[in-house]
Amino acid sequence: MTKAMTHNYASVAPELQISDWLNTSQPLTLASLRGKVIVLHAFQMLCPGCVQFGIPQAQRIYEEFDPKRIAVIGLHTVFEHHEVMGPDALEVFAYEYRLRFPIGIDKYEGERRQGLPLTMGAYQMQGTPTLILIDKAGCVRLHKFGHVNDLMLGFSIGALLSEEIDGAAEAAAATQESTANTACDADGCGV
Amino acid sequence: MTKAMTHNYASVAPELQISDWLNTSQPLTLASLRGKVIVLHAFQMLCPGCVQFGIPQAQRIYEEFDPKRIAVIGLHTVFEHHEVMGPDALEVFAYEYRLRFPIGIDKYEGERRQGLPLTMGAYQMQGTPTLILIDKAGCVRLHKFGHVNDLMLGFSIGALLSEEIDGAAEAAAATQESTANTACDADGCGV
Amino acid sequence: MTKAMTHNYASVAPELQISDWLNTSQPLTLASLRGKVIVLHAFQMLCPGCVQFGIPQAQRIYEEFDPKRIAVIGLHTVFEHHEVMGPDALEVFAYEYRLRFPIGIDKYEGERRQGLPLTMGAYQMQGTPTLILIDKAGCVRLHKFGHVNDLMLGFSIGALLSEEIDGAAEAAAATQESTANTACDADGCGV
Amino acid sequence: MTKAMTHNYASVAPELQISDWLNTSQPLTLASLRGKVIVLHAFQMLCPGCVQFGIPQAQRIYEEFDPKRIAVIGLHTVFEHHEVMGPDALEVFAYEYRLRFPIGIDKYEGERRQGLPLTMGAYQMQGTPTLILIDKAGCVRLHKFGHVNDLMLGFSIGALLSEEIDGAAEAAAATQESTANTACDADGCGV
Repeated sequence: MTKAMTHNYASVAPELQISDWLNTSQPLTLASLRGKVIVLHAFQMLCPGCVQFGIPQAQRIYEEFDPKRIAVIGLHTVFEHHEVMGPDALEVFAYEYRLRFPIGIDKYEGERRQGLPLTMGAYQMQGTPTLILIDKAGCVRLHKFGHVNDLMLGFSIGALLSEEIDGAAEAAAATQESTANTACDADGCGV
Repeated sequence: MTKAMTHNYASVAPELQISDWLNTSQPLTLASLRGKVIVLHAFQMLCPGCVQFGIPQAQRIYEEFDPKRIAVIGLHTVFEHHEVMGPDALEVFAYEYRLRFPIGIDKYEGERRQGLPLTMGAYQMQGTPTLILIDKAGCVRLHKFGHVNDLMLGFSIGALLSEEIDGAAEAAAATQESTANTACDADGCGV
Repeated sequence: MTKAMTHNYASVAPELQISDWLNTSQPLTLASLRGKVIVLHAFQMLCPGCVQFGIPQAQRIYEEFDPKRIAVIGLHTVFEHHEVMGPDALEVFAYEYRLRFPIGIDKYEGERRQGLPLTMGAYQMQGTPTLILIDKAGCVRLHKFGHVNDLMLGFSIGALLSEEIDGAAEAAAATQESTANTACDADGCGV
Repeated sequence: MTKAMTHNYASVAPELQISDWLNTSQPLTLASLRGKVIVLHAFQMLCPGCVQFGIPQAQRIYEEFDPKRIAVIGLHTVFEHHEVMGPDALEVFAYEYRLRFPIGIDKYEGERRQGLPLTMGAYQMQGTPTLILIDKAGCVRLHKFGHVNDLMLGFSIGALLSEEIDGAAEAAAATQESTANTACDADGCGV
């Protein structure tokens, strides 16, 4: 139905693997957010498309929707230029841009920040910005590399929020027939 | 939950009273659209806020959503400067702005185009632009004078589209507890 | 030097032929504005590109620059749909859009509003919006059908305003060597 | 005449003090650019106002104007968060944002990057973004902390470019009577 919906099967969203958090007093897990719709926004602080579109959009969602129903999570998925986008730089960035939503720093295999971080890999993301919607039952229902416009994103959030948790599971199973939102299959997103 | 939701009770949407249609080969009625979510956008062609925000938004909705599920209807509710916003002028306007969605010209009491037109009066609209969302069961669920941003409007459409028709009726009855969208009571919108 | 400068020779700007004025207590003539730089913005009230770009730009120039040095004149050059863009409609349009700069209604040959109006013809304009810059000496120095961005338009105004009147005449004669702005030749703009 | 012109006397522009350059094969000096109008854009790579407005504007000027007449220079004036806006980070930033104009990194007193850098101090800048226009004779003619709109900036560039070098010196001396552009006095800008 919409350009935003690019995948056909819903799969359980892999748990976040985070080395550090900003804007939250305690670590978040997807498991602990069951029952909420989760807007996961993966970005890099020096990615122009993220700074211009994705991050302001995440901030708008955070400001306009009820946090008891819709959780906005930023995910800093640095896969290039690691040396200049470390935790200190991100902290300054989030402070200067007045970001208020929780931001997790994607973890690396081993001690060094290098290569693709773990959550980014688990979701088979193609780059930044990437927007992922996770339903109340914990399934990925939308996975989009690039820009999703406000109209379609609002629509998808509204549709997901309206689902009963059981309904969400069914919808996830129903694949293409689902109203408006589908995502990666059990084997991933086929980058 | 959101600024877009400004009224508390859902009521049956008054039927449109239209003197003429553009962009449709046959007259539309709300009754014939039962089962669809209806986006009713009331405007005047020389209203700057309509031209800048409301009309492009209606056009975007028309282009991005499935017409089998979501009906976009423009309503030309001329309540001032009637002499220069007649049907001929509107036709040129719609042509020059390449509007594609159906537009109904709101009817007047009697022969002359003067005063407040009938549909505008029946909905107790306060001015233009006014955005009205009607659910699958034919109830007004959002009534907003002014601008509704894309994120909230998309959200409301997504929520309404997810309702079962019976569910819609229930939600309409449930008033304030409804997820995200409520509207005028049976007696109107209390302008 | 810039995309804004599309013609090579300066010519004396044809006098305006105006049937009626808005936003000025007395008719304006180019002759009476010698010594000022004139920004002549030709538009039609139902031309989307005019409403979105050209008219707001004219309004900005009117608000930001000193009217003793820079005169902004709107020119309503209706060459199509004459019946719905008459003086009454224009008056409502200017009122609703809160336009403050003087607007002249381009005159027609004969009594009827039909075909190409006279000033539009004299300048050999290709359509609307058209932007014309006239120097202190009364010569056309920029003639552009379509959009000129603020940076280049500001630049051209700054350059023209800096000219001495004698200098303006010389610059007009100097053709391609002129700093930044040239326009139609003595025979017109070669539409 | 315009909001952009906020200072009353022109002064000789202090020479740049640069530790390193991007986007130029050889170091630039103001002295070597005499005869050109110089647009000096001081920014920090993690300053939101710079990223959103100032830097794209500098890029537009660089792309639209003749480099033989108008020199655009970026000046990275890091006065806070030095550790995360070092040369390596700037290089990534300039690469990712596809900046093409020459960028000088403002130098510090001593070896360490700390406190206010030297050029920023010499110009008594109040923060970032700061826009400085330098005339053909090497005098500061506009000094603005914050945003200058394209219309006024284009205007000022056009006016300065039209000056003869002798005229520039005179205009600098003429203070308030100058057409459109004035700047800091000999003692500085009175932060």
